[in-house]
Amino acid sequence: MTTYTAPVRDLQFVLHDLLDISTLDLPGYGDLDREFTEAVLDAAGKLASEVLAPLNGVGDRQGCRLENGVVRTPDGFKAAFDQMRDGGWTALDCDPEYGGQGMPYVMGLSAGEMFSGSNMAFAMYPGLTHGAYSAIHAHGTDAQKATYLPRMVSCEWTGTMNLTEPHAGTDLGLLRTKAEPQDDGSYLITGQKIFISAGDHDMADNVIHLVLAKAPGGGEGTRGISLFIVPKFLVNDDGSLGERNAVSVGNLEEKMGIHGNATCVMNYDGARGWLLGELHKGMRAMFTMMNEARIGVGLQGYAVAEAAYQNAVAYARDRLQGRAVTGDANPAGPADPLIVHPDIRRNLMDQKSFVEGARALATWCAHLIDRSHLAQDADAEALVSLLTPVVKGFLTDKGFETAVQAQQVFGGHGYIEEQGMSQFTRDARIAMIYEGANGVQALDLVGRKLAAEGGKPIMAFFEMIKAEIKAHDTDEDLKTSFCDPLKTASKDLQTAAMFFMEQGMKNPNAALSGSYDFMHLFGHVALGLMWTRMAAAAGKALAEGTGDRSFYEAKIATGRYYMARQLPMTGAHLARIRSGAEPVMALDAGQF
Amino acid sequence: MTTYTAPVRDLQFVLHDLLDISTLDLPGYGDLDREFTEAVLDAAGKLASEVLAPLNGVGDRQGCRLENGVVRTPDGFKAAFDQMRDGGWTALDCDPEYGGQGMPYVMGLSAGEMFSGSNMAFAMYPGLTHGAYSAIHAHGTDAQKATYLPRMVSCEWTGTMNLTEPHAGTDLGLLRTKAEPQDDGSYLITGQKIFISAGDHDMADNVIHLVLAKAPGGGEGTRGISLFIVPKFLVNDDGSLGERNAVSVGNLEEKMGIHGNATCVMNYDGARGWLLGELHKGMRAMFTMMNEARIGVGLQGYAVAEAAYQNAVAYARDRLQGRAVTGDANPAGPADPLIVHPDIRRNLMDQKSFVEGARALATWCAHLIDRSHLAQDADAEALVSLLTPVVKGFLTDKGFETAVQAQQVFGGHGYIEEQGMSQFTRDARIAMIYEGANGVQALDLVGRKLAAEGGKPIMAFFEMIKAEIKAHDTDEDLKTSFCDPLKTASKDLQTAAMFFMEQGMKNPNAALSGSYDFMHLFGHVALGLMWTRMAAAAGKALAEGTGDRSFYEAKIATGRYYMARQLPMTGAHLARIRSGAEPVMALDAGQF
Repeated sequence: MTTYTAPVRDLQFVLHDLLDISTLDLPGYGDLDREFTEAVLDAAGKLASEVLAPLNGVGDRQGCRLENGVVRTPDGFKAAFDQMRDGGWTALDCDPEYGGQGMPYVMGLSAGEMFSGSNMAFAMYPGLTHGAYSAIHAHGTDAQKATYLPRMVSCEWTGTMNLTEPHAGTDLGLLRTKAEPQDDGSYLITGQKIFISAGDHDMADNVIHLVLAKAPGGGEGTRGISLFIVPKFLVNDDGSLGERNAVSVGNLEEKMGIHGNATCVMNYDGARGWLLGELHKGMRAMFTMMNEARIGVGLQGYAVAEAAYQNAVAYARDRLQGRAVTGDANPAGPADPLIVHPDIRRNLMDQKSFVEGARALATWCAHLIDRSHLAQDADAEALVSLLTPVVKGFLTDKGFETAVQAQQVFGGHGYIEEQGMSQFTRDARIAMIYEGANGVQALDLVGRKLAAEGGKPIMAFFEMIKAEIKAHDTDEDLKTSFCDPLKTASKDLQTAAMFFMEQGMKNPNAALSGSYDFMHLFGHVALGLMWTRMAAAAGKALAEGTGDRSFYEAKIATGRYYMARQLPMTGAHLARIRSGAEPVMALDAGQF
Repeated sequence: MTTYTAPVRDLQFVLHDLLDISTLDLPGYGDLDREFTEAVLDAAGKLASEVLAPLNGVGDRQGCRLENGVVRTPDGFKAAFDQMRDGGWTALDCDPEYGGQGMPYVMGLSAGEMFSGSNMAFAMYPGLTHGAYSAIHAHGTDAQKATYLPRMVSCEWTGTMNLTEPHAGTDLGLLRTKAEPQDDGSYLITGQKIFISAGDHDMADNVIHLVLAKAPGGGEGTRGISLFIVPKFLVNDDGSLGERNAVSVGNLEEKMGIHGNATCVMNYDGARGWLLGELHKGMRAMFTMMNEARIGVGLQGYAVAEAAYQNAVAYARDRLQGRAVTGDANPAGPADPLIVHPDIRRNLMDQKSFVEGARALATWCAHLIDRSHLAQDADAEALVSLLTPVVKGFLTDKGFETAVQAQQVFGGHGYIEEQGMSQFTRDARIAMIYEGANGVQALDLVGRKLAAEGGKPIMAFFEMIKAEIKAHDTDEDLKTSFCDPLKTASKDLQTAAMFFMEQGMKNPNAALSGSYDFMHLFGHVALGLMWTRMAAAAGKALAEGTGDRSFYEAKIATGRYYMARQLPMTGAHLARIRSGAEPVMALDAGQF
């Protein structure tokens, strides 16, 4: 059985030492002093470690069951969901007008890491509700907001996103689900949607489905798509629940992981729905919440990795096997703990340096989203838009890799389900796939984000790195261990971007052949920037005479590891990119 | 559901174009002309694709069951095992004196790839029997050989290896299982062994356990360990089965994958056993079969990857999603097949270039084992001994990575168990762990193999690369696309080896901190050498006017991809290695 310890100290480091949030001039940020955020995160962490984590293995083993058309969640899920709801955790960063607590997204993300880390499958129920909440909040009419939001903020009603159909995954232009307009302004929705996470369950009174469908007159492809609100139970004018809508669960998928979450085939048989946002502008409505949703998936990557890492460290400290090459570390015992062995350290440091860097990057992006929403900061929005595919793609790839590495520390025991490490690997796998498979993230990055606004956001990112390096000009330690490798890596990224620009028009396949490597190259540079900033922040705390020297020294040492041992990957990615399209496209389809 | 196509054409390419086995002056090799090996591989491939592959998903879903102390294998396994046995496939490379067909190991490995690729969990039953057969063949008395080998060659009786105990995995010195000598020369074995693959089942009349245990007088640690033959049913003098031995299945493990194989907790309660080989020399007896066993696990890495790759290609050709950036490839259809997209190509080429390179490396190693066994070639033995941890560690890491990449091609469908791609990922995962976890392989490589015989084998390997490069001096295409990158990569490997030698004595942690990267660096160089040789062989066939131009051209193009897109990894591994022990060992155990 695995355990989960809330990483509050590390979250606090990112919020205060790195981002210094309480000093920032943004609505709602002024309240976020160290004491307040610690109290919030401690309480969230308590729920995560004491309530959600013990249900993680239960959810994996039991999974969800479909009984007479109703989805039953694993034992204990309902009670835990009640606790989460009663504690106000689903409302943390929601609009006070609809019952939310009005905290910035940066706080929602920080608490959310612990919910996803302790029980990813469980956390998806409120997580998807939050996504649907955001869509209705951004695009709904006042009446729609009044009808749905208060109950979704509290998670009395939960939400879903219905995009995929059996023949239409990434390519939403192929959708067949139809929406037929009715005289009363509603639509009748008919079609089948698949892979609907949290599609149905027994923990809430109603499920509000947001469904992409084609209404007449929109034209071919994605232009014809609109977004509809389709509740499981129709809602009467007084807000009470009316009759059952014609939407049903066709099947529950047997998946590799996240067994505690119900992945449903949803059948819409003339179900009654209401347009959300503008007719035929459904894709636009979806995209406005994409940044947040994708950062939320990137979060799952490092949140699960953190949980896996914690258990690997505990095992490495505990398990006695072999002797340290430099002399017995545990002479009284039959063998030394695994953690004395350099290759175990290498493995653990890979994990630790990734998770902490990833947390910094995602939290910074959450803060940029706050800037964009709370202060209408267009530069912040452009930057986070650029970084979003990196957060989603890179952090979930590396998060999965980290879970695999953590599992490896356990040797044969890691392969046994009872131990729980396999679950982290199996759960983490999905984050690389859903919310836009990582190859699609790479395509988004290179095909759209890079060239957005004539390249202004990526230039701003490079300027930011340059400024960071310049700021530590006179700090010899930072310069050697952090700024110099960051400069090299950043140069690799610039060279790659230049290569794409040169090739772009005349040979689009050359850029697309390197897109995946570019996403990873970018990820390493972004984490390199985060580590440089974190090392500087830790150095500041040490210089100011912090009482917690060990914590800050470990932070710097972990950053040094990342710069020395991960950042050199940028050279390999650049070499792959520069080899261009020829080796990638050389074969005919029949030659594979 | 997944399918499996026997890769006979590719196996033939390795055996004949690359290794030219029929011309080699080794006992048994003279018979191996193209027609003969094709007939053998076709027949093995038919068994694999038509009998074993359809049971792969069945085994995964049903798993094994423990019923009243007896393990029941999944539906169809027993009939398939009978077919395999009746076809003589378990006897292919066994000694004719005991009923084997006497083919070289290189043929056993080639057929074995298809058995593991089509159904890894199933193939472990005969696979472990082969390992036990080899141990008894090498170390048994004449009487033991006469008693056990004929029935193990035919797999009427199967075999197991019992090493691990709950508290003793890699560190076998901690073993507690006891062997008490009896007056009749036998021993009574008492203790618990875990993770015993194929530990019990219903497909054979007897199971012959090889068990590591401590007999009195051997001293502490691994020195006290001996190897014992412990049959499930005692064998009477006339070869008939006698009474049940005091060995029983304590439990069946629930695992992440290979559900079709019974992973048993074995309890020995004063079970009767007989010494195999010399007393207190059990470790040595185990190690003599280690090369073969570890290459067999390396094989599982690329065998499962090949199966996953095949299914990914089929899906990429079939699934319509999106449009090619260079213009519609399927204008009559609603979308283009996935395979038009450069990033899908990148993914598939990563897979293809790995699998084919890995097959070449493992088959070459099998051939080196043949040289060492059949012609007492000490240089071949030293070289394969050096390469073995690379084959085991690198090919299983990359094999798993390949299975994950193949799964990714399917998008959300890859996460659904019904599709079968998850099983490849889950099955492939174990190969990184068992038969010495990959970190232990890296330790073996750097801590022992590198320095063996004063470094003679690694120097021989470098000389071999130099000679290969020199041989193609005047071939401009080979030089640019293959020899030059191979030279660079080989230089990285030499620099790393030099770094270890310089650091070795004064700072052993520096070498051990880089051991894992060294294993991967070595793997890339070895595959680079294989691809250079394969490209040269393919070029030769093309120059000679082969009628199968497309096949050989694809071979060269796939090799070019590996050299351009995988070999640059050596630089990153070298950089990690050169950063030394400091970043790896910086933290106290408490700071993780």
